[in-house]
Amino acid sequence: MLFFTQCFGAVLDLIHLRFQHYKAKRVFSAAGQLVCVVNPTHSLKYAPTRCTAAQASTEQGMLPPCHHHEEVHDPQLVPCTCPLFSCPWEGHLEVVVSHLRQTHRINILQGAEIVFLATDMHLPAPTDWIIMHSCLGHQFLLVLRKQEKYEGHPQFFATMMLIGTPSQANNFTYRLELNRNQRRLKWEATPRSILECVDSVISDGDCLVLNTSLAQLFSDNGSLAIGIAITTSKVHSSEAEM
Amino acid sequence: MLFFTQCFGAVLDLIHLRFQHYKAKRVFSAAGQLVCVVNPTHSLKYAPTRCTAAQASTEQGMLPPCHHHEEVHDPQLVPCTCPLFSCPWEGHLEVVVSHLRQTHRINILQGAEIVFLATDMHLPAPTDWIIMHSCLGHQFLLVLRKQEKYEGHPQFFATMMLIGTPSQANNFTYRLELNRNQRRLKWEATPRSILECVDSVISDGDCLVLNTSLAQLFSDNGSLAIGIAITTSKVHSSEAEM
Repeated sequence: MLFFTQCFGAVLDLIHLRFQHYKAKRVFSAAGQLVCVVNPTHSLKYAPTRCTAAQASTEQGMLPPCHHHEEVHDPQLVPCTCPLFSCPWEGHLEVVVSHLRQTHRINILQGAEIVFLATDMHLPAPTDWIIMHSCLGHQFLLVLRKQEKYEGHPQFFATMMLIGTPSQANNFTYRLELNRNQRRLKWEATPRSILECVDSVISDGDCLVLNTSLAQLFSDNGSLAIGIAITTSKVHSSEAEM
Repeated sequence: MLFFTQCFGAVLDLIHLRFQHYKAKRVFSAAGQLVCVVNPTHSLKYAPTRCTAAQASTEQGMLPPCHHHEEVHDPQLVPCTCPLFSCPWEGHLEVVVSHLRQTHRINILQGAEIVFLATDMHLPAPTDWIIMHSCLGHQFLLVLRKQEKYEGHPQFFATMMLIGTPSQANNFTYRLELNRNQRRLKWEATPRSILECVDSVISDGDCLVLNTSLAQLFSDNGSLAIGIAITTSKVHSSEAEM
C-alpha cells in the first residue's frame, strides 16, 4: 500500500514539474522578443540627498546636474548614474557604459523590443531593478524602482534614460507596456539624458508609476514583465487632435 | 501720446482675444471626436463607509454589493451609483440612466470615441467628474475622482463602469488615453458593472491612477483631456506573447 502511495506521489511530482517547465518556457518563448530576467539591487547605501546640489545647479541652468561634488570640474564628465550606489566615480559619457558593466555588473541587451522581467517584487523598498538596452546605435538605462514616496505606501517607478546628451535624448521615444489579467497600461515618453538625475525624474513622478495593488495585478508569481520598445521620435500625431 | 498708448493696448487685447478663440476652437474641433466639457462635482455629503456593507456581502458571494441598507430586498434593485452623493434612491437597472440624468443632471454622450475634458483640476479632494457614455447599445459611467488616499497627497483615479450586469460588462474593453507634452499614458481594461461599487474599484487602485505631478503634465490650463474608446472585448492577443 505504501509503495502505491509513493508511486502516486512521484507521478504528481512529475506532473507538477512538467507544468512548471511549461510555464517557464511560455515566459521565455515570447514570440521572438528577448526576455531578460532582472534581479533586484537592494542597497543600504541609499543616499536620497545625492541630487540636492545637482538640482540647485539645474535651477541655475547648468549641466550636468548630478555631480556629487560641489565644484563642477568639466561639463563633459558624468558622475556614476547607477542609482542606489553612492559611487564616487565620474568619467566621460563614452565610458559610462563600460563603468556600469564592469563595476556594477549591469547587463546590456540588444534589440528594438525586449521584455524586462523583474523578479522578487515583494522585496521591501528601496529596491531597484536596472538594465542597459542597446538599440538604434545608442545605449539606454532602464530603472525600475520600488520606493516609499508616502511612508508605508511603496510604489513602483519605471523610467528610461539615454546614456547621451539631452539633445540626443530628444530624438527618441520609449514605450513601457504592462499587459496581464485583461488590463493593459502603456507609458510613452521621451527618454531623459543620464546627465539629468534619475532620482529627480522619479521624485517628480514624470515616469510610469504603479501602486502596489496595480503592480500585483500585473505580476505573475512575484515577477513583473515590462515590454520595452524604443523608436526614433516623431511628433505624437494624435496630440494635436486632442 | 496717451491716445496712441490706448490704441496699442486695444490692438494687443484684440490679438489676445483672437488667440484665445483659436485655442478654444482647436480644443473643440478634435478631428471628428466629440469633446465634452465636464465640470466637477464637489459634495460635502461624501460617505466613505457607503460600501462597507456592500463589500461584506460581496465576500459572501452576494450581488448586488453596493446597497446602502443592510437588508437586500431584490437582487435586481440597484442603489444609486452616482458617487459622492449619499442618494437613498434604489431601482431596477433599466431606470438607473434616467435617474442619473434627471436627479443628478449627469450628461449622456453618444459615440464610440469621445474626449472627456475635466475642468478645474486644482479643486481640493474629494472631487468627482462624471459623465455617461452611450455606445454599442449600452450605457457606461465614466468617473474621474480626485481623492487623498494618502493624507496630503491627492491622486486622480479614472474608471469606467457598465450600467449593466457583470457578465454584460465582460463583453467590453474600455480605453482611457492621455496625450500631451510628448507623453502618452493608456489604460485598457474590462469595465466593471455598476452592481460593483465605484468606491471599492478606486480604493483597490484597479483603474487609471495619476499622481498630481503627472496630472499637471497632462493638463492644459487647468483642464485634463481624456480620450475614451469602447470596443467589444477580445482576448488581448499580445498577453500570451509576454
